[in-house]
Amino acid sequence: MKQYKLCVVGVGAVGKEILRILKERNFPIASLKVLARSAREMELDGFKYQVESISHDSFKGIEIALFAGTEGEKGASVTYAPTAVKEGAVVIDNGADFRLKDDVPLVVTEVNAADVKNNKGIISNPNCSTIQMVVALSPIYKLSKIKRIIASTYQAASGAGQGACDELYSQTAEFLDGKDLTIKALSKRIAFNVIPQIGGFTELDYTSEEWKLVHETHKILHDNDIKISATAIRVPVKTGHSESIYIETERPLSVEEVREVLNNQPGVKVVDDIKGGRYPMPYQSEGTDDVFVGRIRKDPFVPEGLWLWVVADNLRKGAALNAVQIAEALIKDD
Amino acid sequence: MKQYKLCVVGVGAVGKEILRILKERNFPIASLKVLARSAREMELDGFKYQVESISHDSFKGIEIALFAGTEGEKGASVTYAPTAVKEGAVVIDNGADFRLKDDVPLVVTEVNAADVKNNKGIISNPNCSTIQMVVALSPIYKLSKIKRIIASTYQAASGAGQGACDELYSQTAEFLDGKDLTIKALSKRIAFNVIPQIGGFTELDYTSEEWKLVHETHKILHDNDIKISATAIRVPVKTGHSESIYIETERPLSVEEVREVLNNQPGVKVVDDIKGGRYPMPYQSEGTDDVFVGRIRKDPFVPEGLWLWVVADNLRKGAALNAVQIAEALIKDD
Repeated sequence: MKQYKLCVVGVGAVGKEILRILKERNFPIASLKVLARSAREMELDGFKYQVESISHDSFKGIEIALFAGTEGEKGASVTYAPTAVKEGAVVIDNGADFRLKDDVPLVVTEVNAADVKNNKGIISNPNCSTIQMVVALSPIYKLSKIKRIIASTYQAASGAGQGACDELYSQTAEFLDGKDLTIKALSKRIAFNVIPQIGGFTELDYTSEEWKLVHETHKILHDNDIKISATAIRVPVKTGHSESIYIETERPLSVEEVREVLNNQPGVKVVDDIKGGRYPMPYQSEGTDDVFVGRIRKDPFVPEGLWLWVVADNLRKGAALNAVQIAEALIKDD
Repeated sequence: MKQYKLCVVGVGAVGKEILRILKERNFPIASLKVLARSAREMELDGFKYQVESISHDSFKGIEIALFAGTEGEKGASVTYAPTAVKEGAVVIDNGADFRLKDDVPLVVTEVNAADVKNNKGIISNPNCSTIQMVVALSPIYKLSKIKRIIASTYQAASGAGQGACDELYSQTAEFLDGKDLTIKALSKRIAFNVIPQIGGFTELDYTSEEWKLVHETHKILHDNDIKISATAIRVPVKTGHSESIYIETERPLSVEEVREVLNNQPGVKVVDDIKGGRYPMPYQSEGTDDVFVGRIRKDPFVPEGLWLWVVADNLRKGAALNAVQIAEALIKDD
């Protein structure tokens, strides 16, 4: 079996998770370089990694470069991906910078794995909130075209990076101790609060996060006609995004047929046992790979209307796992 | 000015808030009796209240009886309201038991104050999540009939009573201290989690909380044709319910005209300054009387579609304040 020369760029929350998942899934690695702004030794789950300082010379011989990227600011890929591609690597980028470019495939392997073949050197990993939504919706889309999506999200602090994650706990402790709150990583108080803003405000007063759900879903499902509109909210949860998703399909679907296609979908786990009090919750998704779907039910008044409650680990399926799955799809026929 | 013989039944989170608000608003009180299961002396904000043990003899001479009621189980009103009415009192009930009965007005004073006149002894206070929604939607409804409502809620722990409220803080402290979590008042972990169930599961796999938003809104707006569907979620916030509300109106409305009618609506405060990073957040609503509305924007693809983000203190406008406002409407023409 062919083995590959890899590099991982970034050792924040997502970068670390990529290193974990490469190991867990036994990705065929010939060599692994870990790059970040500054060189250092890093320990992760008992393993030591030599982190090298990134430069334009870092990519010689690299075949697959996984960029962990950060939301909110431009990723390292803007600076270094062209160099990596010139050196012959395929870049898999977790950042938002290249996602909507025409010659960059945007891939969720359960949905559009074949698109990896159309890459010109860069493949983008979608945004966390998009990934879990399209994994849940694509099997339904195959039953009947989806005409509309109206989504409200409940997004975890870790989606804003390690700093926001730490701040959730430290600020909550400050609150419980009656101390002044330190607000730094997130622009507003997150302890015992919800924040109706993720990303910056752009067209029509939607946030960048809300537009990602629109444009990325269009691109991944290859259907720009879906009427998608969303409200993205940060909640005081560490890891695990939740989404309250309302859809309208062309043909009215029964709960039973929706449940059946979701049960048969790799990467999806239906947790919808209301009599037993079981439904997806974010803290239970942490550290897992599946997209959990529950609260599947019809609109009482609109035959084509259907609700889903979709939860996934935003650092794993929402970022690192999906990036590694793209790498796996890329080497599949080698 | 006429003064009234009042009683307040229940001294939980809502009962206490009713006592506070009666004082704040200088309700014309001739006498005030505080009733609960067991007699005791209670101090609240530096004032002492003699709580009397409730019985069927408690209501002699009472003119207005405010029942604080509890969600999740039947309120004291089921047992005692008929007695209070027989004794000549008008009952204002915060519980769910009478809300949908034909001869019981369900009132939010900003919306349907005139309905108080149709009472046969009992007037119901709507559910917290309904109240803030109809306060925000009724001025829009006057601009154009609302055809559909698709809502996802972010509801605070205090909506489930004082015990849930206390558990949010104590369980969060346990979590941060690495201790085992005590789960008692709420059926699932609430610390750093969201729970996709409020109330019990009923028809079509919706929860009782989700149906309240449907039936109560129909009754208050006097329009059973509105297609309403909701997902109700508990979030780790102490007080202040938030709602992500999507509506479709008969006539497409502009953001400007919606903002204008909301600005002119008593009881509503528009907080929608995205450039300044200002929008409604639950922790800021705590202890206030207004229904805060922000994130007002059009669906990019559906001309009749519009989003609102609606936040209010669920114990005040969502319960106690609205009950006292009903009492004020009742005595207005005396």
